[in-house]
Amino acid sequence: MNNKKKLNIAIVGLGNIGSYLYKYLNSNKNILSKKNNCTPYIKFVSARNRNKKRKIKINSAKWLNNYLDATKNKDVDIIVELIGGAEGPAKKLVFAALKNKKHVVTANKALIAKYGDKLSKIAESNNVNLEFEAAVCGGVPIIRSLKEGLIANKIGKVYGIFNGTSNYILSSMDNKDKEFSDVLKDAKKLGYAESNPTSDLNGDDVSAKLKILSSLCFNSFLNNNIHVEGIKQIDKEDIVNAKKLGYKIKLLGFAEHLGKSIYQRVHPTLVKTNSYVASIDGVLNAVIIDGKPVGQSIIQGEGAGAAATTSALISDISSILRGNIKFPFSISNKERKNLKFKSIQERYFSAYLRFDVIDKPGVLSNITNIISKNNVSIKRLIQNPNRKKGASSIVIITHSSKDNSLNKVIKEANKKSYVLRKSKLIRIDDN
Amino acid sequence: MNNKKKLNIAIVGLGNIGSYLYKYLNSNKNILSKKNNCTPYIKFVSARNRNKKRKIKINSAKWLNNYLDATKNKDVDIIVELIGGAEGPAKKLVFAALKNKKHVVTANKALIAKYGDKLSKIAESNNVNLEFEAAVCGGVPIIRSLKEGLIANKIGKVYGIFNGTSNYILSSMDNKDKEFSDVLKDAKKLGYAESNPTSDLNGDDVSAKLKILSSLCFNSFLNNNIHVEGIKQIDKEDIVNAKKLGYKIKLLGFAEHLGKSIYQRVHPTLVKTNSYVASIDGVLNAVIIDGKPVGQSIIQGEGAGAAATTSALISDISSILRGNIKFPFSISNKERKNLKFKSIQERYFSAYLRFDVIDKPGVLSNITNIISKNNVSIKRLIQNPNRKKGASSIVIITHSSKDNSLNKVIKEANKKSYVLRKSKLIRIDDN
Repeated sequence: MNNKKKLNIAIVGLGNIGSYLYKYLNSNKNILSKKNNCTPYIKFVSARNRNKKRKIKINSAKWLNNYLDATKNKDVDIIVELIGGAEGPAKKLVFAALKNKKHVVTANKALIAKYGDKLSKIAESNNVNLEFEAAVCGGVPIIRSLKEGLIANKIGKVYGIFNGTSNYILSSMDNKDKEFSDVLKDAKKLGYAESNPTSDLNGDDVSAKLKILSSLCFNSFLNNNIHVEGIKQIDKEDIVNAKKLGYKIKLLGFAEHLGKSIYQRVHPTLVKTNSYVASIDGVLNAVIIDGKPVGQSIIQGEGAGAAATTSALISDISSILRGNIKFPFSISNKERKNLKFKSIQERYFSAYLRFDVIDKPGVLSNITNIISKNNVSIKRLIQNPNRKKGASSIVIITHSSKDNSLNKVIKEANKKSYVLRKSKLIRIDDN
Repeated sequence: MNNKKKLNIAIVGLGNIGSYLYKYLNSNKNILSKKNNCTPYIKFVSARNRNKKRKIKINSAKWLNNYLDATKNKDVDIIVELIGGAEGPAKKLVFAALKNKKHVVTANKALIAKYGDKLSKIAESNNVNLEFEAAVCGGVPIIRSLKEGLIANKIGKVYGIFNGTSNYILSSMDNKDKEFSDVLKDAKKLGYAESNPTSDLNGDDVSAKLKILSSLCFNSFLNNNIHVEGIKQIDKEDIVNAKKLGYKIKLLGFAEHLGKSIYQRVHPTLVKTNSYVASIDGVLNAVIIDGKPVGQSIIQGEGAGAAATTSALISDISSILRGNIKFPFSISNKERKNLKFKSIQERYFSAYLRFDVIDKPGVLSNITNIISKNNVSIKRLIQNPNRKKGASSIVIITHSSKDNSLNKVIKEANKKSYVLRKSKLIRIDDN
């Protein structure tokens, strides 16, 4: 165990999560000391606006005038970064902290996904921990499970639901039979979506988490070759169509070995109604890992919110308290590989295609022509005429086809004058 | 991290699991060394029958003449106990190992459930690890998650499916529409049930695992106040009845705080068809944890088998390689509490009752009389007459009632001459 009886912590950033952590650490200091044989003591705090109204009372002696002072103070052992963002103060703080041999605990997925490799090298050479359990699916202890509980395993695939906001929106569109924009309004009211939910909806949030996970699973450096699509283009009609065909639509992230190729991809996905991921509704997160020798392992829990995130932050702090020093990405940087991730263009998918067209003779045969010309074959076809509008919606489930070909079909169709709005391609998960 | 560059391991017990571990450790020594910054080296092995035919080749220099020599040899750092059983050689080995300051890794739930408190005191005072991830739900990293990933949490309830054999049998009776004895035969052929599956079927296996889990969750010493029932009395008719009523039958273990009372219980349980646990079929295990602040967390995976168990054993060995010394039961023995667990007699349950009776006038009113006399109220009643046999089956779903009262109903009914076979009580999980 750690030789010290107490480690001093500086919390930088006192928003929702920082305040919750401050309160929780204080009121649970005793039990955490007993479990880790070392006391976590909050020595300093810092936040942009010291005078902001907060629910917690903080002794003025704890306030740092400059947040970067935490990195220089010899009394600080652990810095908890809760500023957020890949650049600016968060970046400055974490780089300076590790350089000055402070352990770092962070909930900042953007920072880790972008600078994780550089940061982990500094942490390793200075023999301090860089912990980021809270950066990926808050209440799901997935980072620790990959680095410790499942350490024996060669992992072939990691996938799942990594964003609570988008999952809440998709499942509410389904259960409450509402359109995207209405559900988004509700989600904001209920606190399930931020006032600016862009990165939740465009897939960027999932992308950052997935990069971190695939790096951990495959012992590789972080890699930006990742296909990312969000959920904004999904409308209620797609969800209804999917349901009729025995599917639900979920925003999934996948990192996978397929033969000798490795792919990273984030996109709305049709999953079978009776599959495990289909059962995950609301703001829950779920991570599925296929490993050898363990087989399939699933971890599910709350993905976000101050409470679940605090659970993750404290597991990281506790690990440091116990002196459980680890390589940030599970293996020494010297041993991490520069894997080549492939573009999904060459990967095969079954897919859901939807064409909204003018309802006139010849259109259907023209569409199916485009499809067959591109070597895509049709498994099911449903035509939903909407006589009033003189329009028709053609929904097609394809056999497994090259992604590139599927995209060509969409592109070609979109050029036709009889196509009324952008055609859709949603990939299917057949497993 | 650990200061040593190599730790020497002695594996005692070379059955299915021991052999798999031996092979896996050897062929993955390199990657595990890199991840833990310390090499796991198999220095010695021992097994009851040295000359038995095994799939692995072992250098004769590695064989110990007497398995207890491992505990005395100054070159041994870690002893992996894979003998099994709460008494005899396994007990001797583990006590001697810890006394001689060897780290111990074991898959032996019976030993830990019985002697875990004593063993953990020795481990703690000698500053060595006693690790038993493999003892509870092999491929599900639940012990590590409770001790590390979810360390921040105050846990109110832990429950789930902890035995793959019984879950396989119950779900096959359901899916394949077969009787208990036929499914058991199949399970043995397929290797999902041991030749002597007694402890899997009578609930003892789940009971041992649950005691360990509740001790970890509630920071208490191991406690033998536990209600245990197995699945032998479940027949196809119960499964069919449950299905009609919107339930599945699962063998569940529960450890729970309910107000100021704590209960430990293992019994077949009716769970709603659309609930998460109902979806876990076959040999899978699933553990559900209700904690604060994390909320509900679920971990699911393969519960048994040499491969999944090896994954768990290696996570334990890796923890020791990294020098991550921990209290075996999460908290110092000085701090563990002597909690009073309550008998479930006073707890309230809704229940499924089944009475197989002679089909004659007055019987139904007599049964319902017994029920109301004991302050149990009926929510639903289904009578299935079987005219050919002159018999009838009365199935009742009760409102929430005292367990003691439900048992009195069964006992009283069983004395009646019109009752053809032992009446049934299966508790319902309403959550």
